[in-house]
Amino acid sequence: MKAIVIHDAKDLRIEERDSAPPKAGEVQVHIAAGGVCGSDLHYYNHGGFGPVRLKEPMILGHEVSGHISAIGSGVNGFSEGDLVAVSPSRPCGFCRFCQEGRQNQCLNMRFYGSAMPMPHIQGAFRQVLNAGAAQCVKASGLSAAEAAMAEPFAVVLHATRTAGDLLGKRVLITGCGPIGVLSIIAARRAGAIEIVATDLSENALMHAKKAGADTVINTSANQSALDQFTPDKGYFDVMFECSGAVSALSAGITAMRPGGIIMQLGLGGDMSLPMMAITAKELQLRGSFRFHTEFATAIELMQGGLVDLKPLVTHTMPLDKAEDAFLIANDRSQAMKAQIDFT
Amino acid sequence: MKAIVIHDAKDLRIEERDSAPPKAGEVQVHIAAGGVCGSDLHYYNHGGFGPVRLKEPMILGHEVSGHISAIGSGVNGFSEGDLVAVSPSRPCGFCRFCQEGRQNQCLNMRFYGSAMPMPHIQGAFRQVLNAGAAQCVKASGLSAAEAAMAEPFAVVLHATRTAGDLLGKRVLITGCGPIGVLSIIAARRAGAIEIVATDLSENALMHAKKAGADTVINTSANQSALDQFTPDKGYFDVMFECSGAVSALSAGITAMRPGGIIMQLGLGGDMSLPMMAITAKELQLRGSFRFHTEFATAIELMQGGLVDLKPLVTHTMPLDKAEDAFLIANDRSQAMKAQIDFT
Amino acid sequence: MKAIVIHDAKDLRIEERDSAPPKAGEVQVHIAAGGVCGSDLHYYNHGGFGPVRLKEPMILGHEVSGHISAIGSGVNGFSEGDLVAVSPSRPCGFCRFCQEGRQNQCLNMRFYGSAMPMPHIQGAFRQVLNAGAAQCVKASGLSAAEAAMAEPFAVVLHATRTAGDLLGKRVLITGCGPIGVLSIIAARRAGAIEIVATDLSENALMHAKKAGADTVINTSANQSALDQFTPDKGYFDVMFECSGAVSALSAGITAMRPGGIIMQLGLGGDMSLPMMAITAKELQLRGSFRFHTEFATAIELMQGGLVDLKPLVTHTMPLDKAEDAFLIANDRSQAMKAQIDFT
Amino acid sequence: MKAIVIHDAKDLRIEERDSAPPKAGEVQVHIAAGGVCGSDLHYYNHGGFGPVRLKEPMILGHEVSGHISAIGSGVNGFSEGDLVAVSPSRPCGFCRFCQEGRQNQCLNMRFYGSAMPMPHIQGAFRQVLNAGAAQCVKASGLSAAEAAMAEPFAVVLHATRTAGDLLGKRVLITGCGPIGVLSIIAARRAGAIEIVATDLSENALMHAKKAGADTVINTSANQSALDQFTPDKGYFDVMFECSGAVSALSAGITAMRPGGIIMQLGLGGDMSLPMMAITAKELQLRGSFRFHTEFATAIELMQGGLVDLKPLVTHTMPLDKAEDAFLIANDRSQAMKAQIDFT
Repeated sequence: MKAIVIHDAKDLRIEERDSAPPKAGEVQVHIAAGGVCGSDLHYYNHGGFGPVRLKEPMILGHEVSGHISAIGSGVNGFSEGDLVAVSPSRPCGFCRFCQEGRQNQCLNMRFYGSAMPMPHIQGAFRQVLNAGAAQCVKASGLSAAEAAMAEPFAVVLHATRTAGDLLGKRVLITGCGPIGVLSIIAARRAGAIEIVATDLSENALMHAKKAGADTVINTSANQSALDQFTPDKGYFDVMFECSGAVSALSAGITAMRPGGIIMQLGLGGDMSLPMMAITAKELQLRGSFRFHTEFATAIELMQGGLVDLKPLVTHTMPLDKAEDAFLIANDRSQAMKAQIDFT
Repeated sequence: MKAIVIHDAKDLRIEERDSAPPKAGEVQVHIAAGGVCGSDLHYYNHGGFGPVRLKEPMILGHEVSGHISAIGSGVNGFSEGDLVAVSPSRPCGFCRFCQEGRQNQCLNMRFYGSAMPMPHIQGAFRQVLNAGAAQCVKASGLSAAEAAMAEPFAVVLHATRTAGDLLGKRVLITGCGPIGVLSIIAARRAGAIEIVATDLSENALMHAKKAGADTVINTSANQSALDQFTPDKGYFDVMFECSGAVSALSAGITAMRPGGIIMQLGLGGDMSLPMMAITAKELQLRGSFRFHTEFATAIELMQGGLVDLKPLVTHTMPLDKAEDAFLIANDRSQAMKAQIDFT
Repeated sequence: MKAIVIHDAKDLRIEERDSAPPKAGEVQVHIAAGGVCGSDLHYYNHGGFGPVRLKEPMILGHEVSGHISAIGSGVNGFSEGDLVAVSPSRPCGFCRFCQEGRQNQCLNMRFYGSAMPMPHIQGAFRQVLNAGAAQCVKASGLSAAEAAMAEPFAVVLHATRTAGDLLGKRVLITGCGPIGVLSIIAARRAGAIEIVATDLSENALMHAKKAGADTVINTSANQSALDQFTPDKGYFDVMFECSGAVSALSAGITAMRPGGIIMQLGLGGDMSLPMMAITAKELQLRGSFRFHTEFATAIELMQGGLVDLKPLVTHTMPLDKAEDAFLIANDRSQAMKAQIDFT
Repeated sequence: MKAIVIHDAKDLRIEERDSAPPKAGEVQVHIAAGGVCGSDLHYYNHGGFGPVRLKEPMILGHEVSGHISAIGSGVNGFSEGDLVAVSPSRPCGFCRFCQEGRQNQCLNMRFYGSAMPMPHIQGAFRQVLNAGAAQCVKASGLSAAEAAMAEPFAVVLHATRTAGDLLGKRVLITGCGPIGVLSIIAARRAGAIEIVATDLSENALMHAKKAGADTVINTSANQSALDQFTPDKGYFDVMFECSGAVSALSAGITAMRPGGIIMQLGLGGDMSLPMMAITAKELQLRGSFRFHTEFATAIELMQGGLVDLKPLVTHTMPLDKAEDAFLIANDRSQAMKAQIDFT
């Protein structure tokens, strides 16, 4: 079987790997669809990010779905042929964070496609994947492309849950890549009364609008565009910061109303923040990282027709042109989510 | 001007009353629409409920909207002709509960149409009403009938807020009168993944279905209909108990999953509850009563097109046939919400 | 080794059982102290409670501590001779409640000394116990008697956590057996400004007073003693109901202030409750059952000197007079917590 | 009567002002004790802070207590001679934040001794003060000096409430001025299991230790002193940042465990923060500003003997040497809280 292996920045290879029968507790999945995520792009473009650097070849990928091709001993509830979304998250179950129900913070996490530990955690961009049955959620009624959106949507659902009740709230979204647009969809689905979204790319804002944003603002044209929301101590109840850009976060802080909640999803380095506004307006800046039980909820919301994530998948490349998926995903003027078809 | 006055059970009269110019801080409203609520029916059918009994004639009504006809001194932000929804809730602003932001529990509450204190608090079923500007929310873009739905919807939004985040949750609604059906609408709007509703009336269940319930169950036909949800410690995450019937609450308790939240909106007397299930499954039974800031949110959600409450208004009677509105509201096989047209 | 085995109501036997070396992941503990709990008493007095009945002989006991005598393979962090408190709670780690961090609601729970499933879950009143290393918390600096108090204190800490912040709150405790008195200690430790405790037994109330209650009330003498707290909609912010008696819960409901939180710890059958007060005052009745991570916290609070649970252990019987521990525990006029010394 | 008036940086004068009888709803208070706060010092040292600058003479002071000397019409519950703590917080009661129970964020706040609006809000360092009855809390059983500590303690109680349940939590305090030391007292009172406090001043750390900190660390000697707490993703559950220093906040962020809560009380300008740690560890940085109902709670906790704030008052100066109180308050090597005796 073939796998997509990153060796170094810009050195992406399709390589032959062996497949194996599933062990006890595992299922074997013939991967159908795999989405390219921002962290995949960091490995491809730069060989890593911050202190996380490639030190050995690593199979990329953690947004995948596929069909079950074999079932290990002791596994119930699955049949060959079932379409499943595969969660890339594999917490240990025993550390203190797992014990507290905070499995996404597991001290021994083995998340697909991570160059943090040595040896690296090999990813899921491969034709055949053996996964724990507990990682798999049946996705009947969905396309493989939709099922592969469960992972990024779970990231957003985890943040939404941490933000609390959104019914009747005014929401600001900064950064309209896939995570930002999924945040728009989640916020609207949860009853937000007004959604304003910002980005620098017209293509991203077009998707934001289609996904349900009431107002989209191109902040490259007007950096003080959020100033209109600052009188009377601010306007927004909740913000989803999905850009990782300090300018977006800072502008958002001044536009938040007292007691407002800022969900930080975008990954960035050190940022200089207006702490006086955070303190005096009693804002709450809450980090959000990965997910756990929200993975199954993501599938359920799609299956129930409560959200439609299909329009986000703008490009699909066959496996033998996988590198094109990375190139197009890099171009925010064209792509939202690029996926690879492994079938 | 005319007012609808209850003198005793079944003794409803349309009487002439004087109108007055608005005082400082008040606006004068020509009432357009008024909805008949369950408590109005209790006065009409029985002269009160529990220890609350009519002791003197009282103008009924607390779900009203109308057009501003005069503006008192010191009032800003309103113009003559504006359609407004008028909140019947008038907390004192000074007691300890008002100070804590729990104005719906005000020790000196003066809620329209209440026979609790002496003299009774006169209600809003009248052609001309002077109300505090702070009670009025502009309802431009809505019909008067919709605007008059703000009050019961605010009751439900208060409960929804107390229930917390509903995105991806499984919700049980027991009792599909106006409060139950509005709970279905709110729960769906807030992202509930599955909604099951129960009632004894086919008409109520038809409205529940139309409002978005996935499954409706007539529990008169099958009292153990919720037993299907009890395996594995139960099924529902959240319940809105809107019937005030002990059988509904008890059946719901056994169908709730551990940690589930039961919002109690229905008003009933003493009830015998399965406390072992509440304790062992760690359920949370939370009372919800009236509302405060949710009144404005109710209007905003309608104005934003996020909810459509028009289908709930099944009957509208002219003022001179007001008693017919009470009679039809009594008939659950026909009515959902009956309103009176005061114009 | 010897074990305390219940065969039927009043049929308690000290029997010889085999001990075994610890398996992988386990430690072997020579039990030192074991506290008699209310559920042990139910088996002893009545052969069970509600639908839970003894169907075969069962070793009782789930409040134990002891010294490690052997260590299985793969276990780190323990040495022979260590005093440990042993948690009786053994969730599966895989069901949906375990995955959500709600392990105390595990669908496959194997809690020591439970006659719920067949075969029954054998308990910890035995001289030698093999337990999972994850069940054991080192208790250096404590006596074995104190360490054996970790279990009932964890029950209370779980409820306290569910009740939320208690700093500056007014707290009502109904029922001053061990759980009630531990609730007094926890509430005072968490900063409650005023604690009122009720019971029918003068001995219990004496312990309540010693544990920090500001006021104790014998409700056998005066059933309307809480009426003094009902004006202005009630007085208490938080209530810990530890009696399982409907009269205590009902009286407490009328004495709670709007928005108050009632933690239900006492186990009782069906109870007739004043639902109108729960709804109109927006009370929150929250069940609390067992514990998970709070077991370790219980030990830490004792070790840090933040609570002193020693005064609760009023009687200690040697193993060969174990039945006397049950008899004295039955007598609320004399005992608070009776323990058995297994050494 | 005399008042302490700031005209410009270092230009502090004791001036004669007229007193007046109390209006309806007011009481007249002969001020007894007044504490010098950090914001008073900013006006004295620099003529303001950030964009807030003195533009006209202003009476300073907002931490005061005194005895009632006259009672306006319509005021109940007070007698001449009563010792009261006077809250400096005067929200409007009508804006949207007051309506939401967030009065400390009032859009029309008139907080004593603030140069933010023009004309400035005159403060409470005066021999005779007319205050709204709602601002006054009876402080029988306390000294005037203790009663004047209600204000800074209320600031801390507001933050503690926002932090949530502290029972059994590990707490880090950075900055041990009066607010930091009061945070130690509150955290210990609320059941924190371990408290570590940092500062640059040995005098401050001596007070921190006396107030209940388990460990104190002088970070001037060792800037990486908190590194010991960073393994396994961090150690502390809750942090009270009371220094306003970016180095303290940054070091604290790396020492917080996943899901930890950082209460930001210290006022500082822009700060460069390690956002990757906030996001990846899902920390919550929560601003806290002033207080509302916590002012009365502060008095209650002192009256109940649950906290002892007397040791914090290290210096008391007579009114005619008021400037000495400012000079000593400036010297962190000597003072904790300096008060002025107005009697």
